[in-house]
Amino acid sequence: MNNQELYEQIQLKKSFLCIGLDVDLRKIPTHLLQEEDPLFEFNKQIIDATHKFSVAYKPNTAFYEAYGIKGWQALEKTIEYINTNYPEIFTIADAKRGDIGNTSTMYAKAFFEDLNFDAITVAPYMGSDSVEPFLAFKNKRTILLALTSNKGALDFQGLKTENQEVYKAVLKTAKTWKNADNLMFVVGATKAKYFTEIRKIVPNHFLLVPGVGAQGGSLKDVCKYGLTKNCGLLINSSRGIIYAGKNKDFAEKAKDEASKLQQQMEQILNENN
Amino acid sequence: MNNQELYEQIQLKKSFLCIGLDVDLRKIPTHLLQEEDPLFEFNKQIIDATHKFSVAYKPNTAFYEAYGIKGWQALEKTIEYINTNYPEIFTIADAKRGDIGNTSTMYAKAFFEDLNFDAITVAPYMGSDSVEPFLAFKNKRTILLALTSNKGALDFQGLKTENQEVYKAVLKTAKTWKNADNLMFVVGATKAKYFTEIRKIVPNHFLLVPGVGAQGGSLKDVCKYGLTKNCGLLINSSRGIIYAGKNKDFAEKAKDEASKLQQQMEQILNENN
Repeated sequence: MNNQELYEQIQLKKSFLCIGLDVDLRKIPTHLLQEEDPLFEFNKQIIDATHKFSVAYKPNTAFYEAYGIKGWQALEKTIEYINTNYPEIFTIADAKRGDIGNTSTMYAKAFFEDLNFDAITVAPYMGSDSVEPFLAFKNKRTILLALTSNKGALDFQGLKTENQEVYKAVLKTAKTWKNADNLMFVVGATKAKYFTEIRKIVPNHFLLVPGVGAQGGSLKDVCKYGLTKNCGLLINSSRGIIYAGKNKDFAEKAKDEASKLQQQMEQILNENN
Repeated sequence: MNNQELYEQIQLKKSFLCIGLDVDLRKIPTHLLQEEDPLFEFNKQIIDATHKFSVAYKPNTAFYEAYGIKGWQALEKTIEYINTNYPEIFTIADAKRGDIGNTSTMYAKAFFEDLNFDAITVAPYMGSDSVEPFLAFKNKRTILLALTSNKGALDFQGLKTENQEVYKAVLKTAKTWKNADNLMFVVGATKAKYFTEIRKIVPNHFLLVPGVGAQGGSLKDVCKYGLTKNCGLLINSSRGIIYAGKNKDFAEKAKDEASKLQQQMEQILNENN
């Protein structure tokens, strides 16, 4: 899926919502634990209930790896379920991988080919030859961590180099890499005040924005400074949606939360046009 | 396994060799492709042939994830095989993970508890709260990327901040984190000239050193500047050992290569005492 196709979906659904599938057996409704594959069953019901309000889903691989083989099976089934039933959905493996060239190629194959995700999140610390192997895949997106939304984010991302902070160097340098058109960037929503600066460096790239909701970021602020004429934002919410309910009506509750965010986004998109 | 126990193994085997199990179906001897689990069968024979000469094994998770469920099964079987048959071996999941707090905890559980590795490699880009969840596990080691050995390593690691390069800030800051005694650091062997500087910041921490052999690093140079009185180094070789032979005698060839490196290390350890 290219940027134009993604923007078409955003216009169609009047939403730029991404739902994080960070599924945790300790947090899902207990009646699901009787199922053969509770992780997948939870995801399936969440996806069926919310897909009209979101353009993207983002399983975080940590939550699946924590359950070993069964976790990977649930991840495989989840991505296959989305690709089969909702092929218009943009799928992101939130994996934060990054390694030297031939190893990054193996990761890219795992997520782009074997699992058939549209996109993967990648860490920049190892530099160009750790990211370009991902960028080499046509019609796939590589979402590079730039400025994250967690407490320790500025430990290194915020270090001032001679001219600029490290995260700005990441944005500027990454733009020069081969196939840089396949890049998106992770920019944390708790850092809304940075969006103006970031848009000076990457005026058109899509930004994946976690941190709205549970982590305290403001949707309005992010949009005020981050929106482009083709939207250019994917706003992620995980816990706020998928754990909105704890009982048998959890999918309905998730739908309500997704719908609320979609309505806010629709208003913002209308005002932007 | 703590540093003292690791050093005892180093003294016993007169080796500080770590063997990287970066197993690739396109590179292993073709007769193994008939086996039910070629990845595991390859690893098993490599481990049986080389364990006397190495103190650590380091499977890179990318190479297993690339084969989906079968790859994860091979990884599980490999770590279980080592833990059962050679419990004195230090095991490293070369996973280069790193995410926000609760997600890092999930990764830590996956690799420290579910798979029972002794150590995992972690990327520092997201800062303190992405690494401390790993450090909280007792008797487990977190090996933080500091200065890597690849071409693009200096893209960001080498950026000069107001006082120092980013990788030095990573070393200095990480030393202040909770349970920092559980830290080791990845320092690429192609950067031997940097070891003096690094040892000023982390005089006693173990360093995991990739890049000797195929990537062109010099064992002697690394040891000259990097050795401590308790060794303090784990030198990794992957392709140079595991793909030394391409035929049925591949394990024997791997043994020869591992033995050669062990002999060089024995001489270096003797000279160091």
